[in-house]
Amino acid sequence: MSQVSVRDDEVDIVIAAIEPDLTSFLEGWRAVFSRFHLIIIKDPDLKGELRIPGGFNYDAYTKADIQKIIGPSNAVTFSGYSCRYFGYLLSKKKYIISIDDDCIPAKDNEGIQVDAIAQHINNLSTPATPFFFNTLYDPFCKGADFVRGYPFSLRSGVSCALSCGLWLNLADLDAPTQALKPALRNTRYVDAVLTVPVRSMMPLSGINIAFDREVVGPALLPSFRLAKEGKIRWETVEDIWTGMCVKVVCDHLGYGVKTGLPYVWRKERGDAIESLKKEWEGVKLMEEVVPFFQSMRLTPAAKTAEDCVIEIAVAVKEQLGQIDPVFTRAADSMVEWVQLWKAVKIRT
Amino acid sequence: MSQVSVRDDEVDIVIAAIEPDLTSFLEGWRAVFSRFHLIIIKDPDLKGELRIPGGFNYDAYTKADIQKIIGPSNAVTFSGYSCRYFGYLLSKKKYIISIDDDCIPAKDNEGIQVDAIAQHINNLSTPATPFFFNTLYDPFCKGADFVRGYPFSLRSGVSCALSCGLWLNLADLDAPTQALKPALRNTRYVDAVLTVPVRSMMPLSGINIAFDREVVGPALLPSFRLAKEGKIRWETVEDIWTGMCVKVVCDHLGYGVKTGLPYVWRKERGDAIESLKKEWEGVKLMEEVVPFFQSMRLTPAAKTAEDCVIEIAVAVKEQLGQIDPVFTRAADSMVEWVQLWKAVKIRT
Repeated sequence: MSQVSVRDDEVDIVIAAIEPDLTSFLEGWRAVFSRFHLIIIKDPDLKGELRIPGGFNYDAYTKADIQKIIGPSNAVTFSGYSCRYFGYLLSKKKYIISIDDDCIPAKDNEGIQVDAIAQHINNLSTPATPFFFNTLYDPFCKGADFVRGYPFSLRSGVSCALSCGLWLNLADLDAPTQALKPALRNTRYVDAVLTVPVRSMMPLSGINIAFDREVVGPALLPSFRLAKEGKIRWETVEDIWTGMCVKVVCDHLGYGVKTGLPYVWRKERGDAIESLKKEWEGVKLMEEVVPFFQSMRLTPAAKTAEDCVIEIAVAVKEQLGQIDPVFTRAADSMVEWVQLWKAVKIRT
Repeated sequence: MSQVSVRDDEVDIVIAAIEPDLTSFLEGWRAVFSRFHLIIIKDPDLKGELRIPGGFNYDAYTKADIQKIIGPSNAVTFSGYSCRYFGYLLSKKKYIISIDDDCIPAKDNEGIQVDAIAQHINNLSTPATPFFFNTLYDPFCKGADFVRGYPFSLRSGVSCALSCGLWLNLADLDAPTQALKPALRNTRYVDAVLTVPVRSMMPLSGINIAFDREVVGPALLPSFRLAKEGKIRWETVEDIWTGMCVKVVCDHLGYGVKTGLPYVWRKERGDAIESLKKEWEGVKLMEEVVPFFQSMRLTPAAKTAEDCVIEIAVAVKEQLGQIDPVFTRAADSMVEWVQLWKAVKIRT
């Protein structure tokens, strides 16, 4: 079993500030976050000064910084939850971890506070096994192994490029489900990590994720923006799109995606009943988006995440562009994002 | 959410008697098993009378019964763990549940004894979701749902035809792993059920399974027998082969496969160090078996599990037959098994 060793200075924690006062959020995470460098991006639509308690090693960026880097007119926007992508763009670290500002550390079944950062790093630094399903979950977890029948040739696995964490209390449901079951809370702490099999698509949630920026960073992008997108997670699907994009890239380039631990505890935000009044544009669009990504196959010419994103963007425009203008806009942002990614890399 | 209601008399519990004295095994399961009909098959190689405690509703079969049904000369053999397949052949119930005789009920994280039968029935009677991965595991479990981004058109799922349970204490490792890590025990109770995605192969273990006999029964078959196969699980791969066979059939016919809960507690059996001396024939053969099943695609002409098994048998003979005679024998048994299955169905 090959385990990569990760230093603290190889990690950036990126925080999207959707609310100006980050005091209770950062105090909740102080024990876990304080060893790491933070990149805090203020939602460009947000009024008021950011409030950040002392004792953290961070850089904060605002609308002015965003405009300076990306220029005045463009398809990529960084408003709302998407502001975190500006942090992904500026980071120079190998790993990025991002957690929403309405989450605090969760407790495991023994009541012990979970170190989500350590768990994400563990997920990324041990191999993933996308080519055969291990029924006892991640064989690289302590106390686990490959079960009988698992081919030895597949046991070294592949590098893990993306770690998707989960949520206790308020689960990451869509607007209709949240509105129809306002009392539904996730109380089940499932003590497992597993690799999402190759060619299997999953709904990535940007609430609690970590990834290897050096290999798949360009595929974690802000591009799928609903016309009436709000500032509440269940009214957005940008990260769902991004997740399928990065999964296709990982499958093509030979990287793995893990899901499961770590959990975070999500506090209440938003009025589910209010969301019932909205048009569920995102829900309807998923019916087109999922089959598209399921059937997406990249060419051997796509050798980097940048190449892959460009190929996907071309296919989005061709295959989905006529269905809804949201797809054309998404394709344009994807191309522009790759240009931005390359430009920032050269400049810094 | 469509949930099928299952009556007790629609279930057979099939037990392979590898040891003659079933007293402690059946006493351990009395509270759980006693409402159901049991089919007990005595390993035809086993000497001594079966010992079965009173108070169970069962039929027991021995070597004489096996010979009467299948005749004197044939490719299908029912010795060792494979004797359970004779029970699968004779059952007339919709569902079969099979648990190895070295297992007792497990306890969950709260210390409550698990009703493995109820959990298997729950897995089989709620839909499976093989076409898109739900990050919060089985959405049909109590307290769970589909996460944001899960397409509504896929939420009704498909019928679940196979439920693969897991093991606490002695995990289902192969001979080399068990011998090299003799102290390794599985202590992690993962409170989850999940659908194995379509086209993803997994190592089914026959230790603790349940299936819908009416739809996939013919694909649960004894055919892959090692030349030096022993009476210890880690020396066999017959169920691993069967599992990939039934997974291919489920993927083709549009049924789902779930894995996870229920756990059983596996007691010690066999000497791992003794197994170190054996040739690990099964381990080596998996390198051929797994890619074969991963690339196996059935034709539209295969409309039943019987049809599917015959198509797989033809491909086994053609593609694997030259590699090792074990594959030719497996193909022959598969064909004979389907003939047997049809003959028993007509006769009874």
